[in-house]
Amino acid sequence: MKRYKCTISYDGAQFFGYQIQPNKRTVQEEIEKALANLHKGLHIRVTASGRTDTKVHAKGQVIHFDSPLSIPIHKWPVALNSILPEDITVVDIKNTDAQFHARFDAVSKEYRYFIYLNKVRDPFKRFYTYHFPYGVDLQEMEEASKLMLGTHDFTSFCSAKTETEDKVRTMKEITLSKENDMLVIRFVGNGFLYNMVRILVGTLLEVGTGRREASSIPAIFERRDRSAAGKTAAPQGLYLWKVDYE
Amino acid sequence: MKRYKCTISYDGAQFFGYQIQPNKRTVQEEIEKALANLHKGLHIRVTASGRTDTKVHAKGQVIHFDSPLSIPIHKWPVALNSILPEDITVVDIKNTDAQFHARFDAVSKEYRYFIYLNKVRDPFKRFYTYHFPYGVDLQEMEEASKLMLGTHDFTSFCSAKTETEDKVRTMKEITLSKENDMLVIRFVGNGFLYNMVRILVGTLLEVGTGRREASSIPAIFERRDRSAAGKTAAPQGLYLWKVDYE
Repeated sequence: MKRYKCTISYDGAQFFGYQIQPNKRTVQEEIEKALANLHKGLHIRVTASGRTDTKVHAKGQVIHFDSPLSIPIHKWPVALNSILPEDITVVDIKNTDAQFHARFDAVSKEYRYFIYLNKVRDPFKRFYTYHFPYGVDLQEMEEASKLMLGTHDFTSFCSAKTETEDKVRTMKEITLSKENDMLVIRFVGNGFLYNMVRILVGTLLEVGTGRREASSIPAIFERRDRSAAGKTAAPQGLYLWKVDYE
Repeated sequence: MKRYKCTISYDGAQFFGYQIQPNKRTVQEEIEKALANLHKGLHIRVTASGRTDTKVHAKGQVIHFDSPLSIPIHKWPVALNSILPEDITVVDIKNTDAQFHARFDAVSKEYRYFIYLNKVRDPFKRFYTYHFPYGVDLQEMEEASKLMLGTHDFTSFCSAKTETEDKVRTMKEITLSKENDMLVIRFVGNGFLYNMVRILVGTLLEVGTGRREASSIPAIFERRDRSAAGKTAAPQGLYLWKVDYE
């Protein structure tokens, strides 16, 4: 058995998220089906760096799996891509040591959230951005984003359904960049809770439209209550961009 | 009754082309349904600059229609977009004189064809570009494209099923531009026949991969036979970009 570290990209529009569920099309199931096909029916379990929700995309999701096959390493992507559906692509596969774990070994993750600001919607962007035509004050949003940096208890900024006990995470970077009508918010942190990026974005948009003050962010953290923060922004604007390991 | 000139954009992925057909989802049907809704059931017929095929996109298709309603002109796009499905957007509506005709008055059209050259497919581009990972010689393609300019009988470069008698058209511009792995071929002409851009692109790609000489183009025109030209390139790379009127 050899262990492989595999980077995949997927268009989340037609998936009920990453994780396998009965009777729903998921990324994990499609990958395990493709691997079973390659292994003549043998079930190969894959482990990802984390889940992504329905309609959420990935540019650089990382998974690991073990295989008894002796396919030369450079042939793995071609072999898998020829079986996988077109909305999942294997970008890279590397040999890794038998202890490597896609989830536990991740030291940092990057998410990007795409917001389309034009007054008129664009049919080509409907599955790939969040259309927000209401006008935003970027300076206010940037000020608020700075108050989200550092180590905090993110209880207010994750779904009330979050099962993880420890909700302390460190946000290393948040950058806002706007090109024409596309605003991209980039989040880099050591870990992210359920719906965390989407709630941070929803809150930033409420600051951007003047419904909250940038200076109100510390008080939201202190409340440790989901209802203190803004709405959960739409899933189709979110991309798991990159997972970093040591 | 007032006549309106309306510019629309649509993602062709989920349409069986522009023109109404029984039991198939088409752009024209969705627009006429939206107009009927706005007119309390009154059927308003729309006329486009021309058809587009299944999976082909439009950034600037132009249609005209007549309406008895007296909606202020700036409210028309909002009114229609709130009814239309998300894969069609009204970009602009203007009042026009009662003689304006979206098809007969068009003096020039621009199409763009998007070719994704990266070796590895991209799940986000599968409905919006043609993936062509085989390597192309751009200089050869450019040379061939120059021989397609001017006034020609395009019989070899249109579907054998084309019903139009007169197959003489004038190609005003063809430009190739490559940014990273995306090659865009832009065609501007006074009129285009059925499948014409896709057959021109298919032929250019055969030149680009060395299966034809650039210098063979004039002989293809002379043959006046569809089988003399290259394959019809895939529909999802094609966009009706712009229609010009006097």
